Amino acid sequence: MYKLISSKVYYEGKVLKLQVDEIEYETTKNKGIREIAIHPGGAVIVPITDEGKLVLVKQFRYPLQNDLIEFPAGKLDKNEDPLICAKRELEEETGYSSDKISYLGKIYTAPGYCTELLNIFVAENLKSGNHNREEGEKEMQILELSLSEIIELIKEEQIVDSKTISALFFLKLKGIIKF
Amino acid sequence: MYKLISSKVYYEGKVLKLQVDEIEYETTKNKGIREIAIHPGGAVIVPITDEGKLVLVKQFRYPLQNDLIEFPAGKLDKNEDPLICAKRELEEETGYSSDKISYLGKIYTAPGYCTELLNIFVAENLKSGNHNREEGEKEMQILELSLSEIIELIKEEQIVDSKTISALFFLKLKGIIKF
Repeated sequence: MYKLISSKVYYEGKVLKLQVDEIEYETTKNKGIREIAIHPGGAVIVPITDEGKLVLVKQFRYPLQNDLIEFPAGKLDKNEDPLICAKRELEEETGYSSDKISYLGKIYTAPGYCTELLNIFVAENLKSGNHNREEGEKEMQILELSLSEIIELIKEEQIVDSKTISALFFLKLKGIIKF
Repeated sequence: MYKLISSKVYYEGKVLKLQVDEIEYETTKNKGIREIAIHPGGAVIVPITDEGKLVLVKQFRYPLQNDLIEFPAGKLDKNEDPLICAKRELEEETGYSSDKISYLGKIYTAPGYCTELLNIFVAENLKSGNHNREEGEKEMQILELSLSEIIELIKEEQIVDSKTISALFFLKLKGIIKF
């Protein structure tokens, strides 16, 4: 299909590694460039309270220079099990812990140029505690919303995050929410 | 909240620009790094045939070194209207054209580190034609699937693309599909 001519890493940081490959198509001999953001992947957690509300966080997203409303999520530490990551992010971002976490589904967020894979979980039997946010997450706001409030926010384009909307699709597909 | 200390561009290509900012939190004076992939944004198109089938494409995704099943999509040309982009990608990737395209919703694919915004559209009244794929898209396969076939593929994790799953959520929310 193609062969690799060259590969160069332009940046390697804590979140992203930027790699650019030059390839040659085997049939036409034409050359092409592939720009790839290599990401460790992450976990998303959908916390559901005993009252049936969904817990979201509203936080400043630096790349957009704007606040977004999303389910809690975070990136994997090296070789980390996504379930462990989901539990950690639940506690760090919301203060809740849970002894009932189950797998919902997985998504590639931007498969055209990025390797990021997100595993999505749902957490029930929530217990309150203290959150333990990282610097830069201090001003995060917790929102506990009913499904109809969330649907309204999506219709108003106040919720525009793909992992959050994908997670709601999985909840619906599994019969956990109905709309 | 924070002030910008420095900003450096490590790479600028056709798809991505990789920028790293150093910031200082105003209250604590602690410093932080923000790695940002700057992306032009894109458009997603959900083509629906007169028989009610949804048109998807199966294509090799270089970053994943694997085939993915997705709704047709592409990135915006400079200053391009997302609707124009959606029409172009529909014709290029599937060969269909449409005189009935409507807006469904928008998503940020990876707001933690990437600026990409996708506008999602639905195309009806499809007319057949010849596709006009770019190099590297030649081996793309077109799939015309019923909703129940798509749901089955999602359950089997054969469809794992966040924009595709988000688009299905919007279709359901607007009453265009029912499940």
